[in-house]
This record gives sequence, structure tokens and C-alpha cells, in this order.
Amino acid sequence: MNGPLKNLLVLDLTRVLVGPYCTMILSDLGARVIKVEAPDTGDDSRKFGPFIDNQSAYFMSLNRGKESIALNLKKQEDKKIFEKILIKADILVENFKPGTLEKWGYGWNDVKKKNPKLIYASASGFGQTGPLKDLPAYDMVVQGMGGLMSVTGQPDSEPTRVGTSIGDITAGLFTAIGINAALYDRKKTGKGMFIDVSMLDCQIAILENAIARYLSKNEIPKPMGSRHPSIAPFEAFKTKDSYIIIAAGNDKLFNELCSALEIKDLVKDDRFMSNEKRCSNMNQLKIIFEDILVRKTTTEWIKELTPKKIPCGPINNIKEAVENDQVKARNMIVSAYHKGIGNFRLAGNPIKLSNYKDSISRGDIPDLDEHREKIIKEFI
Amino acid sequence: MNGPLKNLLVLDLTRVLVGPYCTMILSDLGARVIKVEAPDTGDDSRKFGPFIDNQSAYFMSLNRGKESIALNLKKQEDKKIFEKILIKADILVENFKPGTLEKWGYGWNDVKKKNPKLIYASASGFGQTGPLKDLPAYDMVVQGMGGLMSVTGQPDSEPTRVGTSIGDITAGLFTAIGINAALYDRKKTGKGMFIDVSMLDCQIAILENAIARYLSKNEIPKPMGSRHPSIAPFEAFKTKDSYIIIAAGNDKLFNELCSALEIKDLVKDDRFMSNEKRCSNMNQLKIIFEDILVRKTTTEWIKELTPKKIPCGPINNIKEAVENDQVKARNMIVSAYHKGIGNFRLAGNPIKLSNYKDSISRGDIPDLDEHREKIIKEFI
Repeated sequence: MNGPLKNLLVLDLTRVLVGPYCTMILSDLGARVIKVEAPDTGDDSRKFGPFIDNQSAYFMSLNRGKESIALNLKKQEDKKIFEKILIKADILVENFKPGTLEKWGYGWNDVKKKNPKLIYASASGFGQTGPLKDLPAYDMVVQGMGGLMSVTGQPDSEPTRVGTSIGDITAGLFTAIGINAALYDRKKTGKGMFIDVSMLDCQIAILENAIARYLSKNEIPKPMGSRHPSIAPFEAFKTKDSYIIIAAGNDKLFNELCSALEIKDLVKDDRFMSNEKRCSNMNQLKIIFEDILVRKTTTEWIKELTPKKIPCGPINNIKEAVENDQVKARNMIVSAYHKGIGNFRLAGNPIKLSNYKDSISRGDIPDLDEHREKIIKEFI
Repeated sequence: MNGPLKNLLVLDLTRVLVGPYCTMILSDLGARVIKVEAPDTGDDSRKFGPFIDNQSAYFMSLNRGKESIALNLKKQEDKKIFEKILIKADILVENFKPGTLEKWGYGWNDVKKKNPKLIYASASGFGQTGPLKDLPAYDMVVQGMGGLMSVTGQPDSEPTRVGTSIGDITAGLFTAIGINAALYDRKKTGKGMFIDVSMLDCQIAILENAIARYLSKNEIPKPMGSRHPSIAPFEAFKTKDSYIIIAAGNDKLFNELCSALEIKDLVKDDRFMSNEKRCSNMNQLKIIFEDILVRKTTTEWIKELTPKKIPCGPINNIKEAVENDQVKARNMIVSAYHKGIGNFRLAGNPIKLSNYKDSISRGDIPDLDEHREKIIKEFI
């Protein structure tokens, strides 16, 4: 891959999702990633489904284009190899429990003496400080603790998780921002730094409206189904055959929507004359809208409302989302190669940069320890 | 704010969430942000609730520490001011519909002639290319189109949105990564570049397991409540008083969990001997677990399981999440000042950098056009 991070070496000690997602982004931006895995087992996610011919598609989709070497960081022999790579690395990323790498002699304070230019990023469940720092965490735990699950779901439904591991993914994204900012900083100062990202912190950072509501009004927001708490109309409405999402975020769009639905008088209705009023009277607004929207199918409505520039759309399943012409036109489905399986498809990189070509493929999937010889030859 | 982006000038043409979230991160990393708002109305989100004394807490939480100037980019007089700032800016961020800034003479191709070092980032609903590029979008629309809503919710429940605007937020994060990577690139090449981020693309990029499932097996995943599709046990379980989240992501943790629940024999049960088997028999596993877990309260179980290093936790509401000691210890709730309201609290920055102090406060909230005089004095 070519990109802004070309010629940078990432020493990747990550497993499962938060760390591998971050180093995948670094790889997509052009960096070389050497993934250090535990001997015998490798990254836990090699055992996570879905599988193709016993290979984890989950692992493959996150680790394409990385090189793999299996090292036991408690063994002298392997430590030697590790340290040879370490002194040449630009970036180290890890998502062990805090203290793990210190125990092996590779905490930030040890490592910076050997490589003061190193950018050392740790992503963990709760961060490197604070009373909960030593606790293990997975996505689900921080989605629950961080409050996101308390505002996701139907009113009074059972607990609802965001259908993707947003606890890991957002922390992977924030870590990638930190690393890139530190790279810029290093160009100015010549020095590396330590980056400490906690998944729980990241959940707090994405609470948006919900946290504003609590911190400003002491309100405790609840799940609202598909509804936005501060903008109306902004939710899924029933149609003849399924649902349509309509998001009319300001007065102008609301007016145009009412015209399109041939209920222009609504604009002058005191209950709906501002976004604030519409929010207070969402239920009444929904009844009026659905009374009209159930008369046609979702596709019919989208055809009708789209030329009028009203933000609307269907609720796509994953197949529909992936096979969407826009997604294809944007090169958001790329391919990677695995020796046993051949080419397979995976999500692309949403950061499109004018100075670099957005590649239609990614590097191969590494077997555990596949690049040992090559790496040893190069670094020892 | 001090940070890696200190001394960089961001010309911020963004409104509502995706763009302001991105420039907020740049501000938290030390950049100076000049927010250009439409005269009279300003950023749409100044009208979004919740409100304190008629001020939008939503707007305030995203725009603290930015300077505001109201400019009509169709008027000659204001264009002059704008261009004076433009030639000195390092970064321009905008989230208009594609083509809007071109129309006013400020598309990337125009602007790069005036300022070739500029990094120009556009975040939009569907991106600058492709068949849907001209359509308007809000968070809800891309959450629906991008497939995330199809895997979020209870099985057969009504459509469920992620309780935070994850369509905007993830695009804001990817844009921030792109900008920081481009800053690093500029240090090497001396050149700026154009960054094109689409909210829909970002939804595809975070589909994780769901997209792997479809692309590898042609499966179309469905919402699964609080359950993870590829890891078990990894969901919310009923307790005596509410729910507990337990996330035992590998065999070792599963064994420890069974010991803790005093059902050690389960480890030898053929139905549960690997993560793959546990995934196939999740329902049976849940019945066995809940039969035990309903005997004690969530707090009791957390006290019991935590010392045994089993990843678990409560489903916190927003108040509980924000007031959590760990969140406080991590400085994830900071304060900002508004002339009319005084100090108020908001979410902090989850990127903790060893070379920069993590400030406990943020800059003041700008009124619309508040910094006009100061800015004109400085740039004209």
C-alpha cells in the first residue's frame, strides 16, 4: 500500500479487535505492519467465526497485509528478535491489559530508552490509570458501562447492544488519530510519545446528545427506538411494505417534506412550527406522517422524495448495503488473497486522499508465523 | 489547548455534527479553530436541544474553544475576509453537500492554487463521487442505508437506531485520522491534499463481523439483542434485580467463569467445548447461566466475578456512566465556560498523550460572530 505512512514500521502486538482495527488503518495509510503473535495459538480472533475452510474471515478482514511472526516475549531467544525489530520501529501498538508489557520489560519507560523516537500506543479497556485499570474488558463490557446501551433499543425492550463492536472500533479510531498526531509531532520535536486510550473513555466521548442532556439538565435519557432525541422528524416511519427513514433536520427541510406529502398546512400548525416544538410533539407528528406514508412502498416514497432533496432512505440489510452502487463506486469493497481460499472481499478504507491512489486490493492474509524467516533475515 | 497540533490554523466551515466533531478533536489536539458560520442563523445545531437558558448544550459541547465569525460566502465583502484567512490556514474542514463550495469559488481545485499547503477535508453523506453524491444525508439515513440498523435491535423488533449519531461520529473520526496523516505527509512533501470522507463509507468500514459474515458466507445477519454473533458467552444476562454483561472471549475465561458459577462440569460438556460450539448453542448456555445468575443482584455478581478477572459489568445509564470513578479519574468530564451560563461540564478527550497535559477545561463557547473584530484585525 502506498500512502502518507509509507516507510513507517509498526510493531503490532495487538489481538482481537481494538488494536488490529487500529493497525489495519495504519496499514491502509501505507505503513508496514509486523504483527507479533503468541506461539501456537496466535491472535485469539483466529478462532472467531465466520469461517471459510477453517480460516476465520473475522481475523482475515482485520489482518490483511500484515506480516506475522510468532514470538514468546518471556523467552530470551525471542526477546532478542523482538528487540531488534523494536529499535527500528516507528510505532508500537498493543492492547494487552495494563502492566503486561511492563512485566516483560517492554513498558513505555523501558522502551523509550532503547528507541526515543518510538510512538507507543496502548489501547485498553479502562486505560493505564484509574481504579479500574487492571480489570479485563471486552467491547460488550464497555458498551454497557459507558452508557451507550442505556440509550440503544426500543423503549422497555431487553438490553440492546449496538450491532457492531463499537466499543472496540471507536477506541481503534481514536488510537489511530493519536498515532498520526504523534507522528506529526515527532516531525517537529524528534521525540516519540506514549498514547493511552481507554475503550470506556471513548464510549463517553461518543455519547453526544445523551451526555449533553444529562450534564446540562440532569435528565437520564432512555432508548427511543429509531428516534433522534433532539431532531424531529428524524426516524423510521412505516410504509406499505416496510419502513422509510426520513431525516428533516431543519425548518426548510420540514417545509419541503410537508409539501411533498401534500400536508402543507402542517407548517403553520402551532405544534410543529419549530424543531423544538416538533420534538415535543413527535408522537402526533408520527401519526400524521404514517397515515400518509403507509399508502406507498418504501421504494415508491424514496423515488418521490429523493428528487425533492429530502434526506431519506431505506433500512438496508448487510447484503443491500454492501451491494449498493454508491458503496461500489466508492471502492468500499476491496479484495485480499489467502493461499488456501483465494481472493475474498472485505471492507475498504473510507479515508480517500487525493495524493494517493485508493487501492482496489489489500495485501495477503498472514498465516501464524508466516514471515519469521524473512523478518529474522532482515532485522537480525 | 496545548498539543501536537499547536500553531496550526483550522478554517472550519462545518455545521451540525460530523464536521464540528472532527474540528473539536483537532482543537483538543491543540489546533486553533476559526468557525465560519452563516450570518443570522449560524450553525443549525444552535437550535438543537437540550437547552440551558436558550443556549443549545448540544452546540456548546461540540464547539467549545472555537472562534466564531459570520460570513456570507456569496458576498464580495465577506469573501475578501474569508480569503485572507484561507491563505493562512493549514486545514480547511467542511461538510456541505458536494459542489457547494465549488459554486462559491472555494472548491479544492480553486483553493489549492491560492494555498498549496492547505489540507482540505470534506465530510459528506455519500462522498464527492458516485451516483448518490448529490443527495443530502443525515446520520439516520446512513445508519439505515449502511446496514448498521439491520443488525441493531431485538430480533423482530421495530427499527432500532444506535442511540448516538454513530454515522456522524465515525465519519468525524475517520476525517480526523485523514487530516493528521495528511499533516504528517505535508511535513515530508511540503504539499497539502484533499480528503474525501463519506458517512456511508464509514458505516461500511465499521460493520466488522456482520460484513465478514455476508462477504464470506453470503449470510445476512439479523439483530441479536445484546448478543455477539461470533463469541459466546458474550451478552447481557438476567440477574435478581436487572442485568449483568459477561464477556468471556476465550476458553480460559469460559473455564474461569464456569468455576466461579460453580458449574465446572460445563467445561467438559461437548456442546460448550469451544467458542464455535458455544456460539452454536448460545440459547442453551444462556438458560444454564441465567438459572444461576438470577439468584443474586448485579452488584453482588460483579463483586464476586471481578476479583476472578472475568470481564463483566453493569448496564449503566448515562448518569451512572458519567459519575463512574474511573471516568472521573481519567479526566473524561471537563468544563467549559459560557458568558451567560457560567461553567458547565462536557465530555473530555480520550486521546491521552504523554508529552501534553490533558487539560481539565476547554475554551469558551462562542456566540455567533463573537470573534469578528479580533479576526479581522488579525488577518486583514
